[in-house]
Amino acid sequence: MDRILLAHGSGGQLSHDLIRDLFLPHFPAPTLAKLDDAAVVQPLASAATGAQPNISRASRLAFTTDSYVVKPLFFNGGDIGRLAVCGTVNDLAMVGATPLYLSAGFVIEEGLEMETLRRVVASMKASAEEAGVEVVAGDTKVVERGGADRLFINTAGLGAVPPGIEISASNAQPGDLVILSGAIGDHGLAVLSEREGLAFKSQLASDAAPLNHLVSAMLEVSPEIHVLRDPTRGGLATTLNEIARQSQAAIAIEESRIPVHEDVRAACEMLGYDPLYVANEGKLVAMVAPHAAEAVLQAMHGDPYGKEATIIGEVMAQPVGKVLLRTGIGGTRIVDMLAGEMLPRIC
Amino acid sequence: MDRILLAHGSGGQLSHDLIRDLFLPHFPAPTLAKLDDAAVVQPLASAATGAQPNISRASRLAFTTDSYVVKPLFFNGGDIGRLAVCGTVNDLAMVGATPLYLSAGFVIEEGLEMETLRRVVASMKASAEEAGVEVVAGDTKVVERGGADRLFINTAGLGAVPPGIEISASNAQPGDLVILSGAIGDHGLAVLSEREGLAFKSQLASDAAPLNHLVSAMLEVSPEIHVLRDPTRGGLATTLNEIARQSQAAIAIEESRIPVHEDVRAACEMLGYDPLYVANEGKLVAMVAPHAAEAVLQAMHGDPYGKEATIIGEVMAQPVGKVLLRTGIGGTRIVDMLAGEMLPRIC
Repeated sequence: MDRILLAHGSGGQLSHDLIRDLFLPHFPAPTLAKLDDAAVVQPLASAATGAQPNISRASRLAFTTDSYVVKPLFFNGGDIGRLAVCGTVNDLAMVGATPLYLSAGFVIEEGLEMETLRRVVASMKASAEEAGVEVVAGDTKVVERGGADRLFINTAGLGAVPPGIEISASNAQPGDLVILSGAIGDHGLAVLSEREGLAFKSQLASDAAPLNHLVSAMLEVSPEIHVLRDPTRGGLATTLNEIARQSQAAIAIEESRIPVHEDVRAACEMLGYDPLYVANEGKLVAMVAPHAAEAVLQAMHGDPYGKEATIIGEVMAQPVGKVLLRTGIGGTRIVDMLAGEMLPRIC
Repeated sequence: MDRILLAHGSGGQLSHDLIRDLFLPHFPAPTLAKLDDAAVVQPLASAATGAQPNISRASRLAFTTDSYVVKPLFFNGGDIGRLAVCGTVNDLAMVGATPLYLSAGFVIEEGLEMETLRRVVASMKASAEEAGVEVVAGDTKVVERGGADRLFINTAGLGAVPPGIEISASNAQPGDLVILSGAIGDHGLAVLSEREGLAFKSQLASDAAPLNHLVSAMLEVSPEIHVLRDPTRGGLATTLNEIARQSQAAIAIEESRIPVHEDVRAACEMLGYDPLYVANEGKLVAMVAPHAAEAVLQAMHGDPYGKEATIIGEVMAQPVGKVLLRTGIGGTRIVDMLAGEMLPRIC
């Protein structure tokens, strides 16, 4: 393939190929190769001096970045500013880190209304306050008309990983139960319906939300959370495939246990989308040791963003790298990663 | 002003107005309000637990971000990849930090040649190796044709600030000598001539370079470096104005002592540009206690990127916030910040 396609940004198979074939050979950091939502590195003082840190006692550092190119900028339930804060906060939370600091880089098309920028920044402020993070560094670039589509935002995030926490998409273990924090597909359908001016759009609202407090509540009741990941681009199906591959395990889920809001289900049927592949911005999936699952689930139900949390399946040893869906009528089918691009510019 | 203009991204007066009027009211972090090239925050472990760190002993954290939208992507002496690494490494170095980790966020226009992306990533790898930093986190978004101009890159950077270092654009002190690390204007003219296909372009080469090793060499001989800043967008004149305002001091420089390569001088004369306002990507300006200046200068001369370093002026108490230029014919004029936009998409 000699040109970049939209599907290279889908979060699905082509995105993974691009990372494996082009980025990883040039950037060989082991933390990058783990393909987790955030890189976990040793404490800075040790990194600077070359001293071996005592990992068991010191907080490690979590570092992550995401660019946001969602179109339109505002949609029911959120906007690019809320996404830019929540998405990066969530990437930190998905390695068990306490998010602390964000940077914000704006690429703005000449002619953007100042009021639009002001609304976006106010939304970032509100989301940052909700998450309890500070925006401490920023940058603004302006390109000529036609050089960009209104506004892109990049955020990078820094957090501290408490001692003893080892959460990674590589850590799923056979026997682990799979917990999903709530219904899937809301974000993708909300953005799509806003973009296309679909009639049912008023009923669909993005789930964009910071999940760090939910994760804190989970970690408080049990350290035996092996995997956390938020199913954004590519949806739940792609995320589960990533975990199955990185953990060299299989994941079996029950279709009937996966919550999907009625309006999302109806819109997906009408449009021919599978909610398993639709992006979420305020959901997480967790792989938890079986004896800890009930306590973790209880803790999740006490958080506003975990009220609908439910166990949807389990991790198995075989077939390695595969995700199996037990359907409502009793069959089992293999669910693959997203191929191609379903909804460009969803985040 | 109700719309974003190109000049809001110039690094000059309108950029400062935008930061002051729109961003700072929403993001009140004191580290952001200092307007230094990187935010210096307390060690993460202390931030997460709320404990008061012993700043005198622990390394603090430096955190910064920049987006790169340079056009064209490749030019004599550099490319967007080298800029994206060096620019962020330099922002860390300008607060005295040892740069350690980078994130990289790519926004790619559908249809970009894979080979172009590969060349850019290879250039980032080479520059990261030269600087001694690791790219540990990344993200890729693809927008449809016409939604962006080929390729934008955001990098965020993390570094460790050694104990005892307090470098800030607010710290210039009357009596300090002003050291410039080399000739100005090379980057801006190299990009411009490439873009416009000017005949003399082969003689002009960008100075894009990582300055962290140069800064290390300077700090090794003296802790009395009060200010470091790299004069990028807006050029040396804008940078000196920022320092004068933030330090509530005046800065006087001698026109005849400011090195400008002959080909840059000739191109500027032909095109009507003032080299004082042209962007650099591999130069720094330092304000140093007078008794330490000679040793710092010697150390700079030993580094490949400091060979042409020279003292160009001094810091004074009055007139507060102003930059004075003593011209070749003996006059003195006030040099203001860049107003408007001279060369859009220079970095």
